Amino acid sequence: MTAATNTTGRENAKAQALRDPLREANEPTSLVARFGPERGLVMDCGVTLAGWQIAYQTYGTLNAARSNAVLVCHALTGDQHVASTNPVTGKAGWWEVLIGPGKPLDTDRFFVICSNVLGGCLGSSGPASNNPATGRPWGLDFPLVTIRDMVRAQAMLIDHLGIESLFAVIGGSMGGMQVLQWASSYPERVFAAMPLATGARHSAQNIAFHEVGRQAVMADPDWREGRYLDADTRPSKGLSVARMGAHITYLSEAALHRKFGRNLQDRDSRTFSFDADFQVESYLRHQGLSFVERFDANSYLYLTRAMDYFDLAADHGGVLARAFAGSKTRFCVASFTSDWLFPTSDSRAIVHALNASGASVSFVELESDKGHDAFLLDEPELFATLRGFIGAAARVRGLA
Amino acid sequence: MTAATNTTGRENAKAQALRDPLREANEPTSLVARFGPERGLVMDCGVTLAGWQIAYQTYGTLNAARSNAVLVCHALTGDQHVASTNPVTGKAGWWEVLIGPGKPLDTDRFFVICSNVLGGCLGSSGPASNNPATGRPWGLDFPLVTIRDMVRAQAMLIDHLGIESLFAVIGGSMGGMQVLQWASSYPERVFAAMPLATGARHSAQNIAFHEVGRQAVMADPDWREGRYLDADTRPSKGLSVARMGAHITYLSEAALHRKFGRNLQDRDSRTFSFDADFQVESYLRHQGLSFVERFDANSYLYLTRAMDYFDLAADHGGVLARAFAGSKTRFCVASFTSDWLFPTSDSRAIVHALNASGASVSFVELESDKGHDAFLLDEPELFATLRGFIGAAARVRGLA
Repeated sequence: MTAATNTTGRENAKAQALRDPLREANEPTSLVARFGPERGLVMDCGVTLAGWQIAYQTYGTLNAARSNAVLVCHALTGDQHVASTNPVTGKAGWWEVLIGPGKPLDTDRFFVICSNVLGGCLGSSGPASNNPATGRPWGLDFPLVTIRDMVRAQAMLIDHLGIESLFAVIGGSMGGMQVLQWASSYPERVFAAMPLATGARHSAQNIAFHEVGRQAVMADPDWREGRYLDADTRPSKGLSVARMGAHITYLSEAALHRKFGRNLQDRDSRTFSFDADFQVESYLRHQGLSFVERFDANSYLYLTRAMDYFDLAADHGGVLARAFAGSKTRFCVASFTSDWLFPTSDSRAIVHALNASGASVSFVELESDKGHDAFLLDEPELFATLRGFIGAAARVRGLA
Repeated sequence: MTAATNTTGRENAKAQALRDPLREANEPTSLVARFGPERGLVMDCGVTLAGWQIAYQTYGTLNAARSNAVLVCHALTGDQHVASTNPVTGKAGWWEVLIGPGKPLDTDRFFVICSNVLGGCLGSSGPASNNPATGRPWGLDFPLVTIRDMVRAQAMLIDHLGIESLFAVIGGSMGGMQVLQWASSYPERVFAAMPLATGARHSAQNIAFHEVGRQAVMADPDWREGRYLDADTRPSKGLSVARMGAHITYLSEAALHRKFGRNLQDRDSRTFSFDADFQVESYLRHQGLSFVERFDANSYLYLTRAMDYFDLAADHGGVLARAFAGSKTRFCVASFTSDWLFPTSDSRAIVHALNASGASVSFVELESDKGHDAFLLDEPELFATLRGFIGAAARVRGLA
């Protein structure tokens, strides 16, 4: 009992130290670049966002030539806390396996920037942040965001930081979509690009999974047509269901079988009830519950929609190669054998387009049973690939 | 306008002719076998169900030797209306492509029986039917059902019909689980068995998908802890989300790409909203909405749970071959190349066990891009396989 009390005491103390996600949406524990009406953000939907902000973190030091900056683009439920403790969860940065002193993306050599995406909920303008015109949360009044809008906002941040050209842009999944968009929209500003576990367009099946997640959120009466923050409610049940479903797609059948199989959770036999008898059920429920404590439901709707809308070829007359015409950027594309959300065929389509456009591209399909999430995990083969690619690019760029 | 009015008129008339699903749960438009307390159903959970019923349909004529009976086992959301119009939806029977006069399962030759599973909602005892002790719907007071319980109930129906031995048992998916259970529990009563697109146990990933669906139903406040029928509500939003998610798993990425791709639904460009811009979204929403009109939410919980619990080897010391020891039944196992819910590896595990037990087994993996649902569709190769297998078995059985 004493041990239990102590644990609870520690957890309470930890909880008190953690930041309220809603507060983070407006006053983030991050650097913030604020843009007034004179520097409005022109968005694909036709709206110009007047008065907006972008939250970001940096690691390492920008060199005098301003030539060693690396932009990291985060995935759907990621954030700018890529290599330092997350203020909301108290957990390590989501890509600390890759980024830090002496790591493949070495912060002793590179100036690493990671910003919260437009439409996100950790300090960049989005549905959870306040509409300057009303002082109340935007909710669904926030304009729909596209991947290109996210990249436009990042480009204005890079301008703000006085950086003309990025040494590299790197990201996986939705982050990889941003990498592709960067290389297409601003080829002269990207020396090297690393789109990982991603695609140049979202597939019908992926749109379908996203739509189920959105319907789960919107079915929750506490969603209140998107105005839950005004009502001080949260569609936690709906968002949790959405996360549970999505989480399955981030793993693989082999990984689920290896980790959980049909093992029972803390019991010797089936309970003949709807309890979480199986470990895999208990794990998924935990994934759902912990997600809703850190993520805004409307942001989830916006960012899934941005991914669904992404189709880089469609913006170039249906020919993906045209998105990279004349590009001098050097690319490193990577996929994982067990990723069924962005299978290798998606990466191959990117590589074929880059080949057709005459761009410089390396491609590797990495053997892993960990599914889509492999790009976030300790995968030595991925790290070796990136270390080699980054090192070679740095030498060409004249970085020591 | 006239045409539209006429259509509406016809649809109204049709709607009036359709049966209320809740009424079907107790007084089905089917044959019904009723069992009193003296013929209670002993269930795996330890309960003996005293006073229960099983609803069924038959097609064709039982021969004098009572040797031409074929039991068809339905899948998760199927029912006994396998080859005749469904009274709730007004649609054709779910396996009319396979079953009827002159068809591979020829009702001019065979006496085809299909019963609603125990725990179902079209007339067999289940959570939507009335508890004889209270006269009110069982809801979650109904005991948890297993695949073996379903088969025990079917065996009592077969007894009731005076049939000692079935010529064949056939079914796909959850129906295939019942086929395997029949062959294991009553080997002397099954001459031929055709488990299609199924497995001898439910995988971790499949349990995970089911759990998401259950959580979607239970997250709906109109579920009311399972007592929604008493409150005259329905957890339609939650059940619809569950169906949408499940439906994706019944198809394949290739089929979704072929049918929908990234095509927009009745519009020229993206709306920058959360409308169903994409055809695949519109299709899924329709699948969800039409499902809730015909299916009971608690039944969905029970039947998904029965599938999760299914693990035929676990009932035989972990050795699947022991489930079929000494079996004289002849088996035909079939899987589909694009089925990722019950992939070919699941069927191979069944075949290996049957080989190890010395049983007679044919196995075919059928080329199809239609995913798990292929077993329900017009697949000429499947029909040719079944026609050949059934014909040969009938000759051995001495059926003209």
